[in-house]
Amino acid sequence: MHNDTIVALATPSGSGAIAVIRLSGSEAITIASKCFKSVTNKDLKEQSTHTIHLGHIMDAKKTVDEVLLSVFKNPNSYTGEDVIEISCHGSSYIQQEIIQLFLRQGCRMATAGEFTLRAFLNGKLDLSQAEAVADLISSDNEASHQIAMQQMRGGFSSEIAKLREELLNFASLIELELDFAEEDVEFADRTQFKQLIERINFVLKRLIDSFAVGNVIKNGIPVAIVGEPNVGKSTLLNALLNEDRAIVSEIAGTTRDTIEDEISIGGIGFRFIDTAGIRETKDVVESIGIKKTFEKIEQSQVTIYLFDAQKNSDNLEAVRIEVEKIRNKYPQKPLLVIANKIDALDDLQLAEINRTIADVLLLSAKTGFGVEQLTSSLLNLINTGALRNNETIVTNSRHYDALLKAFEEIQKVQHGLETGLSGDLLAIDIRQALYHFGEITGEITNDDLLGNIFANFCIGK
Amino acid sequence: MHNDTIVALATPSGSGAIAVIRLSGSEAITIASKCFKSVTNKDLKEQSTHTIHLGHIMDAKKTVDEVLLSVFKNPNSYTGEDVIEISCHGSSYIQQEIIQLFLRQGCRMATAGEFTLRAFLNGKLDLSQAEAVADLISSDNEASHQIAMQQMRGGFSSEIAKLREELLNFASLIELELDFAEEDVEFADRTQFKQLIERINFVLKRLIDSFAVGNVIKNGIPVAIVGEPNVGKSTLLNALLNEDRAIVSEIAGTTRDTIEDEISIGGIGFRFIDTAGIRETKDVVESIGIKKTFEKIEQSQVTIYLFDAQKNSDNLEAVRIEVEKIRNKYPQKPLLVIANKIDALDDLQLAEINRTIADVLLLSAKTGFGVEQLTSSLLNLINTGALRNNETIVTNSRHYDALLKAFEEIQKVQHGLETGLSGDLLAIDIRQALYHFGEITGEITNDDLLGNIFANFCIGK
Repeated sequence: MHNDTIVALATPSGSGAIAVIRLSGSEAITIASKCFKSVTNKDLKEQSTHTIHLGHIMDAKKTVDEVLLSVFKNPNSYTGEDVIEISCHGSSYIQQEIIQLFLRQGCRMATAGEFTLRAFLNGKLDLSQAEAVADLISSDNEASHQIAMQQMRGGFSSEIAKLREELLNFASLIELELDFAEEDVEFADRTQFKQLIERINFVLKRLIDSFAVGNVIKNGIPVAIVGEPNVGKSTLLNALLNEDRAIVSEIAGTTRDTIEDEISIGGIGFRFIDTAGIRETKDVVESIGIKKTFEKIEQSQVTIYLFDAQKNSDNLEAVRIEVEKIRNKYPQKPLLVIANKIDALDDLQLAEINRTIADVLLLSAKTGFGVEQLTSSLLNLINTGALRNNETIVTNSRHYDALLKAFEEIQKVQHGLETGLSGDLLAIDIRQALYHFGEITGEITNDDLLGNIFANFCIGK
Repeated sequence: MHNDTIVALATPSGSGAIAVIRLSGSEAITIASKCFKSVTNKDLKEQSTHTIHLGHIMDAKKTVDEVLLSVFKNPNSYTGEDVIEISCHGSSYIQQEIIQLFLRQGCRMATAGEFTLRAFLNGKLDLSQAEAVADLISSDNEASHQIAMQQMRGGFSSEIAKLREELLNFASLIELELDFAEEDVEFADRTQFKQLIERINFVLKRLIDSFAVGNVIKNGIPVAIVGEPNVGKSTLLNALLNEDRAIVSEIAGTTRDTIEDEISIGGIGFRFIDTAGIRETKDVVESIGIKKTFEKIEQSQVTIYLFDAQKNSDNLEAVRIEVEKIRNKYPQKPLLVIANKIDALDDLQLAEINRTIADVLLLSAKTGFGVEQLTSSLLNLINTGALRNNETIVTNSRHYDALLKAFEEIQKVQHGLETGLSGDLLAIDIRQALYHFGEITGEITNDDLLGNIFANFCIGK
């Protein structure tokens, strides 16, 4: 199945200065050499790995494009197979012409993630590293990028693989004992084995616990902004955006027409959930509004209550009551109360706000006053200790499930050791734990699982 | 000004499997080596040109990404300077992190087209070839791609450059005569000179005439589709699209949510202009609709009148009258009359349509019947003889202007030669013609002109 040569566009679709088309497979170099004419008439098959060649992609006598062609020879390539990368002019038309040409020459269109799947099947990456590639590409803030990078470089799976190996060693010894059952020998030192199990327990527990943080970092922290219409929600989002991204947006060279709902603050992604106005409660339609607001608060980890300090300067008691309402309904959920538009108020009015509403944050999204305090309040709410300490963090729910199952089996093994369970029964539990470890790194796998994992990749990766 | 090192994203913005970041300038390799750690600890500065190196982009101790880095040493690079290309994971976050890192290390953000501008200034391309790069990237059909490719490979400008050189030679000889004015010598053979001028005249005339076709090919042929609402315009566009692009759309791997208004048929781009319904003429608002329809017809080169054959089977006379109205108003403009939805009609009804309406094309966008005939009718309307014969075609209005001016001056020279104009006056006209030739290839240029040309490029090219 994996002997054919695949082709795909590896760069984002659309028009740009250049685009990269990638071929991988045993025939990659042969097929490429049929369509490529080097300016110095070099024979592609005789070129060294990791070299670049200027030439033309030719469709019979027609010149399709002037390109740079890179040669990677197996096993020194991303997939571990022969790989050709063609850097062509970035028009969609040219990209399609070149891909069609290679399809006619016997390539097959790559499926989503197939290059990385081949890298996994050829032993260039383990499964959790392969999954980290997709995470890395979709990472859009420092924290999720750092975790994906760490996972891709094997930080997480190498820890698991090492424990698995030690456990496997003990499993073999215990299974060996079974062969000599009548002689009542103990090849596996039970004290050492207990110590290993304790160590595994400790690591698994830490990894399992890290998932709460990891999940938040990977998916962004959901924040509900609650308040009447026109209290300055989008100005606030803009101000937060500018705080962190002003330079970025300039560099990207693209226009930001709409405010993104996900904003990276201090390297952590925050997803801002739009909410209906909370105050409109006079008829059925409006009570749906309130219901929706509460639903959004329930979906979020943090709630921001935003009000217009200018418009409500004579109405602070009503604001206080509403804030109380939310606090009473969700006592466990962090709530940030923000008085916006304070630039138009005098000191007396500000003092009145501080007196009436507890823990209020005075802010002017327009002038930027208070925005920095808001960002640090948001960051303080998140326990990012693990991240700061550069610890391994689990972000993938598949890994989390496998870790939980492995943990359960290890508990059984521990209990078995303590109660002097017979070797044959102990061996079954150990094998189960090993199975779940193997699921993470990909020693244990099946086509369905691989299909599910790589379907989430983009084509060309 | 052009001694600094520039950096930009070279691939389309957005997320993909990989992205390419490009550096160019005297410090490109030095700067890259500060941020790159090869897996085998190679020193970048000692690597040969056109080689690829696996390693990590490091921001101090932090690993930003695992990348492939390509080295191109001057003058063997796109810009003619030292060039580094970094192929990183295609997340926007990573792209931005790497670009920001290089900016901090002393690179400057490239302006639009600055890489190609440098290639021009370093003599890697002439000006018309540089302009063809932008045309190539924006080409979205076979014809415009082929012309841009030809121009980029120098087909057009090399012809001009050769004529310019010969003309320059004669100009020098004539100017030399002026130095020996008292001796009444003729260094420049007037018969040969007349032949050259005739040759130049011939070439210029051909190039100038080609602009009409070139312009149409480059910008697409505007087609107005006229008709009542719901006659099946979008189904027709879909059918045309499928005729030519079914495979393409599958390959691109992207969803086509909306029908593009530009469709490539037989390698030529057709721009379909949406028109308001033509029949609604009862009040002021509706007569604006008619006015708009006529405006659209005026902007187009071809008009398609589309009607619902099923709905109008008892109403064909009204259709005939409308078609007459358009034909009478625009006698010079090609008009294709299409009876759509004929799949629901019987033979008698079809015969009636053919009898009532002259030159009607029977079509069913739903079943695809008649679509092929429509595409060949559209192609027949366009004079693509020049294209088929692989002749040089001028598509750029700047070149067209320069050619017209050069032609004018050459006419003066020819007239001067015939009337025995004195050498000093002849020399002035020749110099003028040379000036306009030089404008095309870029021997004659100025900052404003360059600014205008390269501002149309994308950043990263």
